[in-house]
Amino acid sequence: MDNRPIGIFDSGLGGLTALKELRSLMPGEDLVYFGDTGRVPYGARSVETLRRFAMENIRFLKSHNVKMIVAACGTISSIMTDEMEQALDLPFTGVVKAAAKAACRATKTGRIGVIGTSATVQSGSYARIIGAERADAQVFAHPCPLFVPLVENGYIDRDNEVTNLVAKDYLTPFEEEQPDTLILGCTHYPLIAPTIGKIMGDGVTLIDPGREAARFVKEYLAAHQMENENKQGSTRYFVSADTQDFDAIAARFLGHRLEREVEHVEVDSLTL
Amino acid sequence: MDNRPIGIFDSGLGGLTALKELRSLMPGEDLVYFGDTGRVPYGARSVETLRRFAMENIRFLKSHNVKMIVAACGTISSIMTDEMEQALDLPFTGVVKAAAKAACRATKTGRIGVIGTSATVQSGSYARIIGAERADAQVFAHPCPLFVPLVENGYIDRDNEVTNLVAKDYLTPFEEEQPDTLILGCTHYPLIAPTIGKIMGDGVTLIDPGREAARFVKEYLAAHQMENENKQGSTRYFVSADTQDFDAIAARFLGHRLEREVEHVEVDSLTL
Repeated sequence: MDNRPIGIFDSGLGGLTALKELRSLMPGEDLVYFGDTGRVPYGARSVETLRRFAMENIRFLKSHNVKMIVAACGTISSIMTDEMEQALDLPFTGVVKAAAKAACRATKTGRIGVIGTSATVQSGSYARIIGAERADAQVFAHPCPLFVPLVENGYIDRDNEVTNLVAKDYLTPFEEEQPDTLILGCTHYPLIAPTIGKIMGDGVTLIDPGREAARFVKEYLAAHQMENENKQGSTRYFVSADTQDFDAIAARFLGHRLEREVEHVEVDSLTL
Repeated sequence: MDNRPIGIFDSGLGGLTALKELRSLMPGEDLVYFGDTGRVPYGARSVETLRRFAMENIRFLKSHNVKMIVAACGTISSIMTDEMEQALDLPFTGVVKAAAKAACRATKTGRIGVIGTSATVQSGSYARIIGAERADAQVFAHPCPLFVPLVENGYIDRDNEVTNLVAKDYLTPFEEEQPDTLILGCTHYPLIAPTIGKIMGDGVTLIDPGREAARFVKEYLAAHQMENENKQGSTRYFVSADTQDFDAIAARFLGHRLEREVEHVEVDSLTL
């Protein structure tokens, strides 16, 4: 057993969807969440800058004595190198790897769709990991850049007319490409999974990267006897921007109000 | 006469709508644009951080020997103090002040509507300047947070179904409040002015802050004999993030392709 917390980080608050899955699968684990809201969005940054941000965020989590780290951010997951992961000296998973492997297990036809931010789609990270896992798979990736602002502004109801119009527009290419599995390749997208699922149809399996990362963590901790023996774990939330609007937005991602107040981290204190 | 360039800065690329108006009103002026795309969005930053960013951006423009500075950013315009403006040792205008004064001139009923980002609306800056200018005016301000991502993703056609649905939703409160003048209080909004105007109706005058700032600059330069005597001015573009997608997005704001390539500025080189 190992009663240290699990660390989760993201460029913003979308990673809370992964935290929600971790909490649901592992009620006894202590969790430390860091959202780098002071430097969001990561999409327009250079790869060098993103690698530095990743190491800075990981260093912050390490200062909280975590036993394992989850990068709940598609962009960061896409640019972490094997060398970076090995240098951590801690077990690590990114949402991209966990979701890509789950899609390879789920697909019957080998036709896998991916939706994500423009940065994630352009990085080709899903296609790369899927290709290494299952050489015969075909990957069809399309960016859905308006999904994040729609979710952040609460346009998440299954029948929301605006979100339905935008989603139909974005998902049209899949009618021809006919994937049987679709990766929701951005932490925000699970909140509109009902809308996406309705358009894609029952024959398509949706993969939620946060849930897959949580499953990976649970299996890893069990296999290494690193589980927390407590019944009820605690959660701490840290962000690097102002904390004033955090509660309302966080509640949207978590599906419930916060158990405790968010704590502020100065961006300057992160810098390596 | 004064043949030095005019400097314009913004947190991102929205300020190009102001640059377009400057170019249109003053074909002979040289213009230097700086978009702080490496640190966008400014909305979630603390006021102290924003004031530092403003001074850093202004210092960058000063290094290009400008004769006047335009803050083409609602957020920055809202947090610049009189002391900061006086310390510049250069003529300065922000889009907020120019637009607020124009609205006071335009309104007959004294009922002025304002739409902008959540940060701009929460700052109350428009109401403050309008109140100082015209004590009997009533200001009705509403945030329209989805307008920026809609514009940035090209949902700008007058008949775009998504943008029309979202705009109708946001503009509904004005049906009761009945302003006769509406400030488009964010640099992105002039691109969807036809949609907004259609919903507001012919009786409502739309105020474009970029255009009003350009008018202010033109009048100021004329009054101080500071105009450029050349026939055809040049434009230089600088941004602090990757430059790869700049051309396509810039073309949307400018309504034409760039005359010359965008130049990159390292964020670290800006820091005071």
